Amino acid sequence: MQRTLRQFMERHVVPRYHDYERIAATGAYPTEVVEPLKQLAREAGLWNLFLPGLRDDEPGTRMSNMQYSPLAEIMGRVYWSAEVFNCNAPDTGNTELLHLFATPEQHERWLKPLLDGSIRSCFSMTEPDVASSDATNICTTIRREGDEYVINGRKWFTTGALHPNCKFAIVMGVSDESPDAPRHQRHSMVIVPLDTPGLNIVRNVAIMHHHAPEGHCEVTYTDVRVPVSNLLGEEHSGFALAQARLGPGRVHHCMRTIGQCELAVEMMCERALTRRAFGKHLSDYANVQDWIAQSRVEIDQARLLVLQAAWKMDMFGNKAAHIDVSAIKLVAAQLQTRVLDRAIQVFGAMGITPDTPLSYLWSWGRAMRFFDGPDEVHLRAIARAELARARDNLGATAAFYSTSH
Amino acid sequence: MQRTLRQFMERHVVPRYHDYERIAATGAYPTEVVEPLKQLAREAGLWNLFLPGLRDDEPGTRMSNMQYSPLAEIMGRVYWSAEVFNCNAPDTGNTELLHLFATPEQHERWLKPLLDGSIRSCFSMTEPDVASSDATNICTTIRREGDEYVINGRKWFTTGALHPNCKFAIVMGVSDESPDAPRHQRHSMVIVPLDTPGLNIVRNVAIMHHHAPEGHCEVTYTDVRVPVSNLLGEEHSGFALAQARLGPGRVHHCMRTIGQCELAVEMMCERALTRRAFGKHLSDYANVQDWIAQSRVEIDQARLLVLQAAWKMDMFGNKAAHIDVSAIKLVAAQLQTRVLDRAIQVFGAMGITPDTPLSYLWSWGRAMRFFDGPDEVHLRAIARAELARARDNLGATAAFYSTSH
Amino acid sequence: MQRTLRQFMERHVVPRYHDYERIAATGAYPTEVVEPLKQLAREAGLWNLFLPGLRDDEPGTRMSNMQYSPLAEIMGRVYWSAEVFNCNAPDTGNTELLHLFATPEQHERWLKPLLDGSIRSCFSMTEPDVASSDATNICTTIRREGDEYVINGRKWFTTGALHPNCKFAIVMGVSDESPDAPRHQRHSMVIVPLDTPGLNIVRNVAIMHHHAPEGHCEVTYTDVRVPVSNLLGEEHSGFALAQARLGPGRVHHCMRTIGQCELAVEMMCERALTRRAFGKHLSDYANVQDWIAQSRVEIDQARLLVLQAAWKMDMFGNKAAHIDVSAIKLVAAQLQTRVLDRAIQVFGAMGITPDTPLSYLWSWGRAMRFFDGPDEVHLRAIARAELARARDNLGATAAFYSTSH
Amino acid sequence: MQRTLRQFMERHVVPRYHDYERIAATGAYPTEVVEPLKQLAREAGLWNLFLPGLRDDEPGTRMSNMQYSPLAEIMGRVYWSAEVFNCNAPDTGNTELLHLFATPEQHERWLKPLLDGSIRSCFSMTEPDVASSDATNICTTIRREGDEYVINGRKWFTTGALHPNCKFAIVMGVSDESPDAPRHQRHSMVIVPLDTPGLNIVRNVAIMHHHAPEGHCEVTYTDVRVPVSNLLGEEHSGFALAQARLGPGRVHHCMRTIGQCELAVEMMCERALTRRAFGKHLSDYANVQDWIAQSRVEIDQARLLVLQAAWKMDMFGNKAAHIDVSAIKLVAAQLQTRVLDRAIQVFGAMGITPDTPLSYLWSWGRAMRFFDGPDEVHLRAIARAELARARDNLGATAAFYSTSH
Repeated sequence: MQRTLRQFMERHVVPRYHDYERIAATGAYPTEVVEPLKQLAREAGLWNLFLPGLRDDEPGTRMSNMQYSPLAEIMGRVYWSAEVFNCNAPDTGNTELLHLFATPEQHERWLKPLLDGSIRSCFSMTEPDVASSDATNICTTIRREGDEYVINGRKWFTTGALHPNCKFAIVMGVSDESPDAPRHQRHSMVIVPLDTPGLNIVRNVAIMHHHAPEGHCEVTYTDVRVPVSNLLGEEHSGFALAQARLGPGRVHHCMRTIGQCELAVEMMCERALTRRAFGKHLSDYANVQDWIAQSRVEIDQARLLVLQAAWKMDMFGNKAAHIDVSAIKLVAAQLQTRVLDRAIQVFGAMGITPDTPLSYLWSWGRAMRFFDGPDEVHLRAIARAELARARDNLGATAAFYSTSH
Repeated sequence: MQRTLRQFMERHVVPRYHDYERIAATGAYPTEVVEPLKQLAREAGLWNLFLPGLRDDEPGTRMSNMQYSPLAEIMGRVYWSAEVFNCNAPDTGNTELLHLFATPEQHERWLKPLLDGSIRSCFSMTEPDVASSDATNICTTIRREGDEYVINGRKWFTTGALHPNCKFAIVMGVSDESPDAPRHQRHSMVIVPLDTPGLNIVRNVAIMHHHAPEGHCEVTYTDVRVPVSNLLGEEHSGFALAQARLGPGRVHHCMRTIGQCELAVEMMCERALTRRAFGKHLSDYANVQDWIAQSRVEIDQARLLVLQAAWKMDMFGNKAAHIDVSAIKLVAAQLQTRVLDRAIQVFGAMGITPDTPLSYLWSWGRAMRFFDGPDEVHLRAIARAELARARDNLGATAAFYSTSH
Repeated sequence: MQRTLRQFMERHVVPRYHDYERIAATGAYPTEVVEPLKQLAREAGLWNLFLPGLRDDEPGTRMSNMQYSPLAEIMGRVYWSAEVFNCNAPDTGNTELLHLFATPEQHERWLKPLLDGSIRSCFSMTEPDVASSDATNICTTIRREGDEYVINGRKWFTTGALHPNCKFAIVMGVSDESPDAPRHQRHSMVIVPLDTPGLNIVRNVAIMHHHAPEGHCEVTYTDVRVPVSNLLGEEHSGFALAQARLGPGRVHHCMRTIGQCELAVEMMCERALTRRAFGKHLSDYANVQDWIAQSRVEIDQARLLVLQAAWKMDMFGNKAAHIDVSAIKLVAAQLQTRVLDRAIQVFGAMGITPDTPLSYLWSWGRAMRFFDGPDEVHLRAIARAELARARDNLGATAAFYSTSH
Repeated sequence: MQRTLRQFMERHVVPRYHDYERIAATGAYPTEVVEPLKQLAREAGLWNLFLPGLRDDEPGTRMSNMQYSPLAEIMGRVYWSAEVFNCNAPDTGNTELLHLFATPEQHERWLKPLLDGSIRSCFSMTEPDVASSDATNICTTIRREGDEYVINGRKWFTTGALHPNCKFAIVMGVSDESPDAPRHQRHSMVIVPLDTPGLNIVRNVAIMHHHAPEGHCEVTYTDVRVPVSNLLGEEHSGFALAQARLGPGRVHHCMRTIGQCELAVEMMCERALTRRAFGKHLSDYANVQDWIAQSRVEIDQARLLVLQAAWKMDMFGNKAAHIDVSAIKLVAAQLQTRVLDRAIQVFGAMGITPDTPLSYLWSWGRAMRFFDGPDEVHLRAIARAELARARDNLGATAAFYSTSH
């Protein structure tokens, strides 16, 4: 499967890389590049590879997280290629949510076309006015009025809202505003068709000056009304849904990061072998060699950690791998800026231009340190797990090893 | 003078910050913002502050490098403000070159309007096809044919070529192609009016996805002809001219960096004091405190180093401060990415959007690691100076301090 | 097996930790601590676990490198405990060498008692006068005179030479001094009984001020004569023997490092949970939490990398895992100083005293960056492997991904 | 003066370096090395250089902190040489305290011989049982009974207590145990002659395995009685005394660190120029060059910061330079481990042996991160000062620079 995918990438996707870039630079979504590739990918059996729970009547190839991981790595090499295989965020996360919690009507209306790749979706959670890394801060309101929910609030980083095929958003907001509602049982998620009155895409927020053609959008919801049947899962269960949504998506992200780092190392080596300065090839300089070697050992370690997390999710469920997923999220985002930084340095001034993918991948790595929670949230989660374990054994180690006089 | 400038910035420049940004985002140069500010600055006596050698018939205020440095720091806080005071690169460097080497006609035609701020200029040195950090690699040709020089080559990072007032480029190229010409006496610099046939601005190269409205341009020169009177300095002295041009400009760059880092620390503190996550202000988290404190001590150290270099240039000349200038260039660029990285992290996702100057300043810091030579060139120069000194004292230290058995 | 070993450590080894330290601080070897533990370990079937190739008539438990690795991690927690299980360097490496290359007499006289644990051995390779990281620099001479080899040279870092049971050294030196001898076929290894005249233990070299009771010794060989039957393997094959010797030993070292880092994290957590400063437990400070979390993710990644290298050695042989072994050596040594540095910081001034194992483990980590080759040798090896691979595919990646205009 | 001192060091001190080391390794204090050098130094006018407030009847040369700083740097090159010039901690701090607060009898009995160098002293503040970085934690008691103070408690890191000439300790403890005593007015300092019954030097605590011959001692005080006339300053003013004591001492420490880092760079360069590996001198490797260059720019920056702090103390008093002193303490200690780490790496295995001063200086640098307060205390102080300033200007910066939509 890896061989098939690698060949597909080399034959079909990579040759369209510059076309995609050229169109995207105009602000338009490169539909004419992506759609034919999707057709080819589906025919090649490279479809929905990310979703372990596929049913027989759903299109795609069932795989475990562990099996899918190396494929995500390969996809990562062209940053927009995951959509070609219907494996791109945020549709993957939304697909998983619907798979787990959709009513039959929701399944028919939203999940089926998502699995077919005929529509796209987006996810409205992060808000500019609060530290959304702490999801309980979210303050968009979802109020029930009769048979409808009325939504009011401002979101941003709603990725994909400008995709020409984007048809709906999953919106998270406060549904229980009573002051004594438990902090983790106050939010709900609802499906909002993108053409609902009151939903307004304010702007496409550039991330580190890069405008994604599908948009990382600021979206306002002003008295947006949807039928109560658009509720996802149970009322006030939004926090739990958000948690459920994250594990596999983070593994995908991380493996794509690994793929991008591998690409950076390849490019760095090629450049170092062919570029000369002060009478030597760059590859003959010990500092350049150090960058290459450090990148190699860091990438290999990170990959093993991600694969282990994927394996744990397969074996023991997403919840059991909670801390592992925090760990890989943290490691991968930091890895990406570090490796890309070195690759850029080897490329010289060319590295900061759009003439290579390096500048995009570097600043994307920086952004990754916020997506799905900033580093600090994950560091905190990992430390607390470690401290909790230590608390259970308090005195055991120190008593043995430290001297008291 | 610092107080005057600071007040001018606060009253006149900072309030136009968002107007500049808004216009620049459309691709146009914000002339309507900058020109009135220039008028005000000149009236306020804040004009050409950077040029120590001003003559009585030239407009501006004479200052030493040391005296100008704190003013450059203040200007740095608004990244485009140096032009308001006629103190922006690359015009500063070109002004210095002309000041030192212009013939009377060149003085009249190019230097006077530069000092007046009525025209702009650019500098065409870096080439995409060679490692230009080693200036002897430059391969654009400047061939004499009769009374003309004929120029052929491809340049990039020609900053300012898209400025609406840009009237000429100073171009560096090989003028002596004989194989046995000494490596540092093969190049010349010539003045090329921007409307000369054969000069073609190919594109504005985005730096880390950011399009400067004045352009960091790729420019091709195809059989471009200028009269021999456009030669700057002596024939084949281009390498020496390039060296002469760099010292003060790097001090300016570095002090602006310091100013931008100070701005980042201020913003980081404000954000930390007002943003809450997980029940505390960010300013109460020890890791955020560490970032603030580390930034403070790093900035203070870097500023002292830059001021010392400026002082050395004033006292002993640009050449004597050669290694000092390499040192500050290295330190400042690395400082900027480091401090800005921390500020971004405190701002959360907002830090990677265009809603603050932080994302621009961060990626500009990354680019700074190439401008005026990549880190490695400066590290090498510093190390060689250190090793040369050690070679002169070989054996002195080790003989005393190391044991031999 | 891990459970058995862990219990053995807790019941028998850890309780003797302070006794060992107390005796070692006097300069004596703590035989009275170690010998009874060896007896117990052998009875418990925890003997020679490191040697995959054990024969039926040899004492111990056969295990793959992969299986042994987690056991080495557990042993690492008490830095001197490997000897208890007859698994300590340099005896392990010498045992492997003899296992592969000993003649029947050598087997009887040296290998059997080594496997029994009744004698110890040392390994004389590194020389103070040359950069021994490049083994071809070694210049001790091994000259054949009749039926004897005559050895002359100065060695250091001959670990174990002061162990009361140490009976022989394996010495590496130049046996073919002809100028046109191939660089990697000039050295031989010979077995030298420790009581041979001319062998002089000059001193026990403290490593970061720590005197190991078994000694990291400087040893001079002056006209030391041994019979030719003491040659190990073939004449002039010393370089190949040295290579063969290293792989598994490095895995052991690295896994012990992992174990020591785990111990440091445990101790750091305990201390953070119980120590207060400025009104809070240290564990409530975000920077302390960051140190704990970073240590956790770094250790977990390193362990996976080491296990992968062990697995490769088991599957494809030591030679095939050559670069993997360089990678783990590099990663583990850097990990150890980093994690221990954090643990020390949490312990405050106590961390730099002998009252915890932390100061020893920190400075040992620093020393590890030289043992079995300095970081730079391994970085270079890894980079060269990476560059070699890139050379084979030159143009493939850049051609696809980089724009040419 | 710098020239005089430098020559004195080269002619008299450095040649005794190995003698000092040899004697110290036996555990004895090298009186026979130090005392003759003291005599020479005093004759050369190099005496008590550190004490700005010398009176005419006191021996030594009056200098400002700023003037003394470069001299401290030179002394730093031989880590034990400060005593030769009567400029060593903790006697310097004790001298300052007595200078400011001693009664006429205390002046006669303790200060005069200190200034003469005929006795030594120590300072008992840090306690093993509490986080002494927060001085209000200190819990040794100083209870008044009639005309005596009775002292009970356990101290460590009492430097100098094993010096053969050490005659008294200044001890800090709680003198006001009433629960409502203000936290910073509960402690007193008293002078305790070293031969007072009940004062027991428990052990010389090795710092990173290095035993200083003058001792970093653990000392217990059990019902130690001294007359009330031994009180230093006012009762319950111990906290203020401790604060007053620290500023200049930290500048001295930091400048000695700078001197030691310069020594390390010199040695690193010498070694790199003379040692070969894999066919090149180490000085030809780009990574080694990077280490040298980074060390150079870091040292130069740190020195400027320390000099600035010294200048501020001279101009505005120790209190005004409070945060500056925190900054230099933080910077210098981190610098020392970083620069020494690089030097050690260039020396290879020799760097971790006692054959060079590098291993000592490296681990001393690590210890420096605790002396006079751990990094975290200083980071916190610096951050709080920065945040306080930001709080006063809240809204000023962000309002200008950040967009709100």
